[in-house]
Amino acid sequence: MKNDKDKAPLRIGIAGLGNVGAAAFSLLKGNAALLAARAGRPLAVTAVSARDRKRARGIDLSGVTWHDDPVALAADKNVDVVVELMGGTQGAAFDLLRAALAAGKPVVTANKALLAARSADLLPLLKASSAGIAFEAAVAGGIPAIKGLREGLAANDIHAIYGILNGTCNFILSEMTATGRDFDAVLKEAQSLGYAEADPAFDIDGIDAAHKLAILSGIAFGCVPDTASVSTQGIRGVSALDIAFAGELGFCIKLLGIARKTAAGIVQSVEPCLVPKNTPVAAIGGALNAVYADGDYAGKILFVGAGAGGRATASAVVADIIDVARGAVRPFLGIAAEDVRKITPADIRQRVGSYYLRLNVLDKPGVIADVSAILRDLQISLESVLQRGRDPGQPVQVILTTHDTREQAIRDAVGRIAALPAVLEPPHRMRIEAFEA
Amino acid sequence: MKNDKDKAPLRIGIAGLGNVGAAAFSLLKGNAALLAARAGRPLAVTAVSARDRKRARGIDLSGVTWHDDPVALAADKNVDVVVELMGGTQGAAFDLLRAALAAGKPVVTANKALLAARSADLLPLLKASSAGIAFEAAVAGGIPAIKGLREGLAANDIHAIYGILNGTCNFILSEMTATGRDFDAVLKEAQSLGYAEADPAFDIDGIDAAHKLAILSGIAFGCVPDTASVSTQGIRGVSALDIAFAGELGFCIKLLGIARKTAAGIVQSVEPCLVPKNTPVAAIGGALNAVYADGDYAGKILFVGAGAGGRATASAVVADIIDVARGAVRPFLGIAAEDVRKITPADIRQRVGSYYLRLNVLDKPGVIADVSAILRDLQISLESVLQRGRDPGQPVQVILTTHDTREQAIRDAVGRIAALPAVLEPPHRMRIEAFEA
Repeated sequence: MKNDKDKAPLRIGIAGLGNVGAAAFSLLKGNAALLAARAGRPLAVTAVSARDRKRARGIDLSGVTWHDDPVALAADKNVDVVVELMGGTQGAAFDLLRAALAAGKPVVTANKALLAARSADLLPLLKASSAGIAFEAAVAGGIPAIKGLREGLAANDIHAIYGILNGTCNFILSEMTATGRDFDAVLKEAQSLGYAEADPAFDIDGIDAAHKLAILSGIAFGCVPDTASVSTQGIRGVSALDIAFAGELGFCIKLLGIARKTAAGIVQSVEPCLVPKNTPVAAIGGALNAVYADGDYAGKILFVGAGAGGRATASAVVADIIDVARGAVRPFLGIAAEDVRKITPADIRQRVGSYYLRLNVLDKPGVIADVSAILRDLQISLESVLQRGRDPGQPVQVILTTHDTREQAIRDAVGRIAALPAVLEPPHRMRIEAFEA
Repeated sequence: MKNDKDKAPLRIGIAGLGNVGAAAFSLLKGNAALLAARAGRPLAVTAVSARDRKRARGIDLSGVTWHDDPVALAADKNVDVVVELMGGTQGAAFDLLRAALAAGKPVVTANKALLAARSADLLPLLKASSAGIAFEAAVAGGIPAIKGLREGLAANDIHAIYGILNGTCNFILSEMTATGRDFDAVLKEAQSLGYAEADPAFDIDGIDAAHKLAILSGIAFGCVPDTASVSTQGIRGVSALDIAFAGELGFCIKLLGIARKTAAGIVQSVEPCLVPKNTPVAAIGGALNAVYADGDYAGKILFVGAGAGGRATASAVVADIIDVARGAVRPFLGIAAEDVRKITPADIRQRVGSYYLRLNVLDKPGVIADVSAILRDLQISLESVLQRGRDPGQPVQVILTTHDTREQAIRDAVGRIAALPAVLEPPHRMRIEAFEA
């Protein structure tokens, strides 16, 4: 193909100069020659917008137009592509996207919350625009998971997506596993190290992972991302005991986002799961992210890397800018906006799989018999039983793992077992994901 | 963006209807509606070429033009894109690529041997053509590693590439690790299961992996793939003893392709390496492939999946066809053909890292002292020493691991140690790759 590096520069307007924005700016300067060769033309930041003009960011903004109003970037005649790194689902971020698309300017964004919440509002704008939206940075930071799924696996009917989609949770669970400490202590450590926010709810309650899963589902299944239909449970309930017992049984605990196509519709969940220790997923520690896609021809494909951080996220932002420069931006969810359908969510209670149950019971004759009778009545068969801490009359931990069963049956069993007089607290239930071929 | 599914079909000519060709044909039919939505237009196979017209392939060729001469596909007026799945570096495959590019028709190929051997001949053809070449299927089968590296990580200065690039070798090493059996027995099993060819040299001597590494290097560093500069060693020399001792030390053995940018140039190697057991790479078993890319912004990104097989490879072929349909084929090695440089190879002996040495020695006083003196003289410091099988006067295995040292020093040490009278065979040397952040 012809060399086109003498083409005019692609002129970039960046809204938001926080951690990611400043890193993207530095990357565009630092790797400029390499980027021009790969983009087929120079990439030049011509305009920016951020809240505080005077803040020190370690970047040289001389020669770059400053806009106090980010939405003005869309109208700037010297801006060909708008990069939205402000965040937020309402107000300026969405207004900027709308203005850019209306002006026929492609948009690059890292704003997963916006995509998770407002894709239904974006689709008509995309339908009416000559430009597209690129959002590699919105899911799994530096991992090219969007491109890998939407383009790399474009030939496949995707059966399922699995992901370790939140680095904070993966860091906490990995630390708990490595040290045997309990959740609260490790959360504090994560906060002091900057891996968790002062208010950690968004991460540890699974909300951030649910946003990313909804976006991945949208691409995999050609439907509008719908966070509300993701059954979401965080990691606050995972105890050091669970991690120790899972370890004895040969498992790690990971917070997994899972979206699966079934006859009844798409089942989407974010929840702590037991994963066999000898799988690649179990070995993904620290704050790393991972995305598994299971296609009818490719089989299971795994992408792993840094899921957050300014530099890794900037890598994804600039990859999208190169796609813009190459005229290679794909339709938002891989297919034409008018072909995107609402999701048909299926109820997680219809899920068939195996489960881990931890019971805290008084060690009295008949307890196990009562529990076994409940499981038998619900046609749940056991894979293994583990009991620890035998002191007659004292509480003991009883760990059960089941063969394949319907989640509704497990939920019913948990309710009935909790009502037994010798059972001291509601049973702890976790899903087992075997990752078999 | 506008819906363009009412566009005319993209007309595909497939040369080669073996395992991959037949699977690609089936995929294009089976997932036709999905593919049309993702490609923005229907994908239609209009012509094929293969050696034997009568062979049963389980595919329906009615309505498809048959060409006895594959090169005729390039001239067929009803063919927009030429898919080359014949293999071979000389003759028809190359002639077909040349004819298609000369006719301005994009080429999709899975032919890694051709790309590894003849990229220097391809570049002038690409320079002169309005069309490009896509080759996702040439490296790591169903894993979108080419796209992930060339487009997903396009913003990065790539420091290094690591890969488990040959499924046959990974299967053999994984089986040896799981069963404790020796190489020859497991090779026979792999042959009977179809994981290894009757003549296994191409796989087990590392040649196939070297081809793939050379292609990945070409993309990562913008240079002409040069298999001749890959220091290549296969897995015939890996014994059950090595696997057992590596295991005791906390390592797995993997055949790794490694390309790394150094001040002296690009160092490329394919060789068995010790990898820590608790890393994701160690957990990649069976016939799976993996590609790691280390970028200055993204950090280490890992891609894992099926590296071979008709269906997985067809997934990659059809992803490339969708790129053609979308007009999104990138320059061959990510940059304009005229910017691609010859590689500056650096000598593997300048590599700095740590090593595993296994010595088979007579258990006599003074042997370890002699070995230690050699290492001291070469300024090699030891990380660990392990000795097994102590029967005075009998052979014993002594396992040494070193701290960082230059490979030249280790090679010198191996030569001097081999010359000691009490040393019964040349020491076995393997590189240790820590995969640290």
